[in-house]
Amino acid sequence: TPSDREGHSGTQSSHRLLAYSDALISIIATVMILPVAHTKMEDNEELRESVQLLLTTKIAVYLMTFLIVTVAWAAHIRLFQVIVRIDDCLALLNLACMMLITFLPYTFSLMATFPTNLLGILLFCGCVMVMGVIQSVIVLYAFSRPFLLNEQIQISENQTFYKHHILKVIMRVPLMCMFASIFSLIFLQLSYVLLAIVIFLPYISQSLKWCRSKAIGQVEETPDSMLFYTYLPNEPLSKDRVEAFSDGVYAIVATLLILDICEDNVPDPIVVQKQFGGSLIAALQVYGPEYLAYFGSFVTVGLLWFVHHSLFLHVTKATRFMGLLNTFSLAFVGGLPLAYQLTHEFPHNSRNELEAIQISCVIIFFAGIFQLAIWVVALYNEHETLHPYVRYGGREHVFMLAKLALYPCVALGTFFLTCILSKFSAQIFHLMEITVPFAFLVLRLLVRVGLALLRLIFCPDRPDPRSI
Amino acid sequence: TPSDREGHSGTQSSHRLLAYSDALISIIATVMILPVAHTKMEDNEELRESVQLLLTTKIAVYLMTFLIVTVAWAAHIRLFQVIVRIDDCLALLNLACMMLITFLPYTFSLMATFPTNLLGILLFCGCVMVMGVIQSVIVLYAFSRPFLLNEQIQISENQTFYKHHILKVIMRVPLMCMFASIFSLIFLQLSYVLLAIVIFLPYISQSLKWCRSKAIGQVEETPDSMLFYTYLPNEPLSKDRVEAFSDGVYAIVATLLILDICEDNVPDPIVVQKQFGGSLIAALQVYGPEYLAYFGSFVTVGLLWFVHHSLFLHVTKATRFMGLLNTFSLAFVGGLPLAYQLTHEFPHNSRNELEAIQISCVIIFFAGIFQLAIWVVALYNEHETLHPYVRYGGREHVFMLAKLALYPCVALGTFFLTCILSKFSAQIFHLMEITVPFAFLVLRLLVRVGLALLRLIFCPDRPDPRSI
Repeated sequence: TPSDREGHSGTQSSHRLLAYSDALISIIATVMILPVAHTKMEDNEELRESVQLLLTTKIAVYLMTFLIVTVAWAAHIRLFQVIVRIDDCLALLNLACMMLITFLPYTFSLMATFPTNLLGILLFCGCVMVMGVIQSVIVLYAFSRPFLLNEQIQISENQTFYKHHILKVIMRVPLMCMFASIFSLIFLQLSYVLLAIVIFLPYISQSLKWCRSKAIGQVEETPDSMLFYTYLPNEPLSKDRVEAFSDGVYAIVATLLILDICEDNVPDPIVVQKQFGGSLIAALQVYGPEYLAYFGSFVTVGLLWFVHHSLFLHVTKATRFMGLLNTFSLAFVGGLPLAYQLTHEFPHNSRNELEAIQISCVIIFFAGIFQLAIWVVALYNEHETLHPYVRYGGREHVFMLAKLALYPCVALGTFFLTCILSKFSAQIFHLMEITVPFAFLVLRLLVRVGLALLRLIFCPDRPDPRSI
Repeated sequence: TPSDREGHSGTQSSHRLLAYSDALISIIATVMILPVAHTKMEDNEELRESVQLLLTTKIAVYLMTFLIVTVAWAAHIRLFQVIVRIDDCLALLNLACMMLITFLPYTFSLMATFPTNLLGILLFCGCVMVMGVIQSVIVLYAFSRPFLLNEQIQISENQTFYKHHILKVIMRVPLMCMFASIFSLIFLQLSYVLLAIVIFLPYISQSLKWCRSKAIGQVEETPDSMLFYTYLPNEPLSKDRVEAFSDGVYAIVATLLILDICEDNVPDPIVVQKQFGGSLIAALQVYGPEYLAYFGSFVTVGLLWFVHHSLFLHVTKATRFMGLLNTFSLAFVGGLPLAYQLTHEFPHNSRNELEAIQISCVIIFFAGIFQLAIWVVALYNEHETLHPYVRYGGREHVFMLAKLALYPCVALGTFFLTCILSKFSAQIFHLMEITVPFAFLVLRLLVRVGLALLRLIFCPDRPDPRSI
């Protein structure tokens, strides 16, 4: 075969290139929360409105970046599900593509700060167009050396057809971006809408089509040409890459706070000498809430990762729709550094502090509930997507449900506690967070006890064959 | 077998846990360069000395953190070469361990800022001792459920012997830390030295032993008990984990600069209106050098990753010594953000700018030369560690040498250019960097031409059978 002939000298497994790309993309998707978290809050009522406006802008930039970057990541997965081997040339082209993706957040910052200026949108469209060109070059290059391609395409007879189909899909977005950038010279505001539609159009149209087919019950057969780049919700998604991307996001989020602590919370020796009589411990006590916030945050992120890890251990095949839900979950996880910044920013027992805790609870709740949603979606097609143990009636089914439901329940409970108890403080909140791991440790026991109780109450006669 | 009996419900492959740990550790090792890079430089001569002192302190903290964190990472690899399967309990214990590792940089910051205060060293020793206890618990837990262990230990008859050997090695460092913390109450300065020796002792003593045995020629047979935790330079090191850790470091370093750009280089709308008459392009031109520095930095980091990737593609087995050289290379890669911060900080064509370029060249040179050193070390034992293609006389041997030598040569060349040409500026430097990828693209051609020329000059009669 040609790939054997070329051998080790030319072609390489793409595994590590993809892992590196996943790491880069997950960092870029997440770090835009830092400008949000670094916005100084003011208790001053006058300044408050301008700060809130700034904060809203920055949160919008964060969410836009997260979404766009994950769309680019999805396109990258599609491309490298077709091209499964690489050589030096493809590796360099991929790095160029990555460089442009990492530049996208800056164009959003410009757009958000100067919404009436052309430059932001032109830069964004420019980046997307260049990326489109690079991706097309990658496709053309790979099809000129077929041993780089997927087995299925390699043995197929209508390679040219595949090539044209893929090129058409890839060039759609850059072409529309070109129109948007021309259009922006005439009527700026509408070109934002155009861009948003362009980027999410395949997802929207396919979701609508899927919903319609589910409602009417008519199942369309996928034609041969649509094996790749179908945009169907059940299009397979590389599980390895979902895991790698998620790991990157969780790792960055877990470490963002320690970075701030190392940079800002080392007191100045002169201040320690003058204000605290040289006592370092006294000087550090001021920062107490921040250390607690750090440990609380690390534990929460770590356990959300742990739940994600437990879930994906039992997922045998990931789909696009599960990937989308995972993205939503990760977007909330990425918001955690902001929540923790807020919890230790405000004076003790103020109304703001309670609000900050509530925001944290909401973020944790949504991060957890979207993880649960991934599982629910997987259950709909459990024979394809799940390991037998966690299917309906499997011996791990209830335990997995308990694992996934723990964080949403704790977050919801804490939220209502803050409404009832006015004495509830950030300290108590973070201490609660640090105790959650013990809940996970005794979860298996709790589930067993709970099931035994249920059995005792509802069907005391029938012995249950399942063991957990 | 027991592991089949327990099955999916209890035990899991440790692959993803290790990938996540690698991501966390690589981020922590690298982000401490940020406080260094964020130190404001002053052209003012008076302030200069205090800034230089601050900078030296911060660089020391960065290097210490990098070394300690990589030592902790090496210990983590050792541990999980013995324990190859995990369950929920081990995953949670490992997360606790990770939380303590991420806290270490802060203790270094305290030590560096308050060198005469006890607190930093006590906190550090405390963290290390707790980590030691957690690791011991992990070992005891794993040995109580032998199906979690390495095949080799699982079938071995003297498991208890292994357990005691591993526990002894693991508890050595925490115990010495306890002594150091008690000692610090009496004589602080010496306890720093003690700590440094404790942490690096196994490496130093084994290196000395290895050198002596090489010099005398006497080869000691490794006893059975020493299959794990030998600290010998040729002890195998998981190649996957070296790659994952390196990917993390390269990815963080490549994206650190865009983070700064997004946070600091979006001009204030009011300033744009007042100073630049509303022209955003004019306002952004001020930041021109920083964009150029970003692209130059991304390209350099990306290509250093590319070289690393090409090298490890041909490495079949990694050893501890190669891992150590890789750590040194990565420590220099981690210094790149500082270099780029320097290159665009100083006024155009000043002496400082030239010095900043020279520092960049030195950093790139060492990052590249240590990569080359990995290959040289691998060549000494090429039948075990390298793929046949890149061994002496292999058809990729010369090409790999050229790839690895390209960056050190370019850096060295640029360094001497800056000495000769006083007009050399940061702009030219970054533009040069952006053209290096093309050098990689034509490298195969260049090597072929070079070899043909050499053959023509030295042995024009003998036809060379090798093709590149």
